[in-house]
Amino acid sequence: MTAAALTEHLRRISALDRVAGLLNWDQETQMPRRGAAQRAEEAGALAAARHALLVDPRLPELCDAAEGAGPDARGAVDIAEARRLHARAVRVPERLAAAVAEATATAHGVWEAAKAAGRFADFAPALGRVVALRREEAACIADAGAPPYDALVEEHEPGVTGAQIAAMFDELRPGLVALRARIGASGRAAPRLRGDFPTERQIALSRRIGDVFGYDWDAGRLDLAVHPSCTGRLGDVRITTRINEANPLECVYSTIHELGHALYEQGLDPEAALTSVGGAASMGVHESQSRLMENQIGRGRAFAEWLYPAMRDAFGEIGVAGPEELYAAVNAVETGFIRTEADEVHYNLHVMMRFELERAVIGGDLSVADLEGAWNERFERDFGRAVPDARLGVLQDVHWAVGAFGYFPTYTLGNVYAAELDAALRADAPGLDAALARGDVSPVLAWLRRRVHRRGREVAPAAIIAEATGCEARPATLIAALERKFGALYALG
Amino acid sequence: MTAAALTEHLRRISALDRVAGLLNWDQETQMPRRGAAQRAEEAGALAAARHALLVDPRLPELCDAAEGAGPDARGAVDIAEARRLHARAVRVPERLAAAVAEATATAHGVWEAAKAAGRFADFAPALGRVVALRREEAACIADAGAPPYDALVEEHEPGVTGAQIAAMFDELRPGLVALRARIGASGRAAPRLRGDFPTERQIALSRRIGDVFGYDWDAGRLDLAVHPSCTGRLGDVRITTRINEANPLECVYSTIHELGHALYEQGLDPEAALTSVGGAASMGVHESQSRLMENQIGRGRAFAEWLYPAMRDAFGEIGVAGPEELYAAVNAVETGFIRTEADEVHYNLHVMMRFELERAVIGGDLSVADLEGAWNERFERDFGRAVPDARLGVLQDVHWAVGAFGYFPTYTLGNVYAAELDAALRADAPGLDAALARGDVSPVLAWLRRRVHRRGREVAPAAIIAEATGCEARPATLIAALERKFGALYALG
Repeated sequence: MTAAALTEHLRRISALDRVAGLLNWDQETQMPRRGAAQRAEEAGALAAARHALLVDPRLPELCDAAEGAGPDARGAVDIAEARRLHARAVRVPERLAAAVAEATATAHGVWEAAKAAGRFADFAPALGRVVALRREEAACIADAGAPPYDALVEEHEPGVTGAQIAAMFDELRPGLVALRARIGASGRAAPRLRGDFPTERQIALSRRIGDVFGYDWDAGRLDLAVHPSCTGRLGDVRITTRINEANPLECVYSTIHELGHALYEQGLDPEAALTSVGGAASMGVHESQSRLMENQIGRGRAFAEWLYPAMRDAFGEIGVAGPEELYAAVNAVETGFIRTEADEVHYNLHVMMRFELERAVIGGDLSVADLEGAWNERFERDFGRAVPDARLGVLQDVHWAVGAFGYFPTYTLGNVYAAELDAALRADAPGLDAALARGDVSPVLAWLRRRVHRRGREVAPAAIIAEATGCEARPATLIAALERKFGALYALG
Repeated sequence: MTAAALTEHLRRISALDRVAGLLNWDQETQMPRRGAAQRAEEAGALAAARHALLVDPRLPELCDAAEGAGPDARGAVDIAEARRLHARAVRVPERLAAAVAEATATAHGVWEAAKAAGRFADFAPALGRVVALRREEAACIADAGAPPYDALVEEHEPGVTGAQIAAMFDELRPGLVALRARIGASGRAAPRLRGDFPTERQIALSRRIGDVFGYDWDAGRLDLAVHPSCTGRLGDVRITTRINEANPLECVYSTIHELGHALYEQGLDPEAALTSVGGAASMGVHESQSRLMENQIGRGRAFAEWLYPAMRDAFGEIGVAGPEELYAAVNAVETGFIRTEADEVHYNLHVMMRFELERAVIGGDLSVADLEGAWNERFERDFGRAVPDARLGVLQDVHWAVGAFGYFPTYTLGNVYAAELDAALRADAPGLDAALARGDVSPVLAWLRRRVHRRGREVAPAAIIAEATGCEARPATLIAALERKFGALYALG
């Protein structure tokens, strides 16, 4: 028994993870309507198989053997990660793991139908089952005395607790609220796009954007889905986007966001990406890649120089006069209902609200039956508008349907990381804006490949970012960048 | 522990089988080019997980418990099948099972590239690995003294041996050879289609054909693939077809063939289809459903009454004057190189040749290095034409690439079953031709649903057919039907 046996075991787990991802992708893009019940059973069987590999009593033996062989630093990461996953998994009965997978696959279909109908009541029973099972699972995993919610966060962001997130959010909130108030008081309104934006043209533009960002089409594909996402690793990394024929920016920025994720997965170290050490560092780091591409690059002033003629090529007249106006349009600050459409000023307020609600649900302080009411009440308090429809409220995101509690805060963590990465990147690449204005994103990608993608999870997520940027990620960096950008856009003086 | 625990275990195996099917479907229709290596690893991990469920020492205990609970006849079938699968699986080391899955997934991609290039030498190493692993696996499974090839046939056609197949083929061959000779001597040539057959129109016609045959589009979908196939069960049964813009009949009959498979899977008993007893009886029975729809129905005189105007609607002028000429065109007897395009007279001769070659390869009497030469020599002997290109020869079929040795003979078994089913069906439904002429295939489907689909694997495959038709399936029935049909078409007097 050598280190190779541990590597093989970890690769097998990674392979089943990718298959689970493929089942989700297929469900969102290809699966016929009547396949949902079977798909839930398939997802359950796969989760049980993955669970069996994690709880396999041979796994700690493989770790011991690999340890005995004197691993290098990267080998040690694989061993530690295998021990962590094994320790978590042995606390969860196989039957519960399968039940969670089935319940979430079922709830996904129920959510889609309930969202289409705009009725939270249709979704509540399926969500209730997911919550009950995830709470049960979290209670199994959590260390004695630790909050169950933290055990769920740990899945997406190892080493980060709910309390740490809450503290970071407390640091961010005042700056965001103040900036929003100043923008509101400015009385300025951003220009709006007007024109004809047929689906096929939006897809064609998305493909051009994929080219520009360096997406490898031989290792991926683009499809439409209700909730855009990115699935896969290395040689098979698929993205989905969505179309609103009234507003092509939803498609453009969904595509760029998912491209950010996909470029990370395509850019992992091929030698190590299929075990633990070469995988993506965490969801927070993942979101830093998507949000950096979407906001700091895609919604930046320089990129508008390329995007404006590209949109004119795609759609003809678009109702704004040039790159400067397009830049203002893509950065319009408006109090909307939908997180994924939110501007950079509002976005994190959406996340904070979801974080607090889901933490209460998992903590047992808020029932699923009361969730819609709590959402609506909270939204009106934070955003000053009444939610007219569950589609624009509690039903908008897929996350809870698929059991992804503890995921939302990683978006804001990603935003904080992205702001820090952007500052460091610009210090390293002074001519960057000239390249972006030509639609050349390659300096960004090259920098990220070296500093983030290739490193996988060699060190902890926060350390990946700190070593890439030369400092700990600070919420103040994000706030300062937003104040500069929106101060200029809204002439806040 | 009750019978329900056995059912759950069997459903989990069935779910992993479906996931494996989905991976294949995705690989043929959706997967980006660079995903192949990872896909092989995913297929391997999945096969190992399935293998772990089959060898699980709890499985015989679950069988004992279910037995003790006094199962009904259908429950007894599930128990017997679980014991059979367990007994086979425990003879195969987990590592070998995973290696077979990986090698076949790899070989599949290699085969596609080698076929595109027309070079068997490019494929031989990958095929050699598949053959070596499958031989090793067959040697593990086979009972002492039994030929390893029989253990592979058993996977597709439980209870049937290579010797039984050889005997059936010996019974069929003289009649086929004689009929072919008489047709050749007749000097008559069938009319040929001429016209413009764009891909999109062929796909649209395929969809219309799906409607006519009763395919449930909410439980399936149609895509293009190099090698048409059918994947899935009940609520998610997908078919693929292929397009030759010079000859729309390839698409039409590939589609109808796969629809025959798909209607079987969509028509299984929903209460039992996800364990063993409700599944498809065998590949021979499966092929009887596809070949019956393709030949007895789809290439029948009555159906030409519907197909002719449908093709005119799709393509305009098609170069034949009416249903009678179309009927002659779709039944043209010509010595071609490709099995899937072969007429009913030549088809089984293709199968016999593959059966004898693969039996020799698995038996160790023929090496992979010599396979192309053996193919070409044998083809020229049997068909009187030299194979000009490996694309038209040894590289034409996907089966060996994916390790499906012992599968080919089920096509001819299916043809024998189909002829017997057709005779019984027509005796039960005297007005059938009038319905088919209107494009109403529902009497056929209703009869098959009741007599074959819903029965699953309640009894042995041959017994399903015998009970549906009232007699054992006889090669003579097929020969007599072919003599009647082609005797009239070629005025053999």
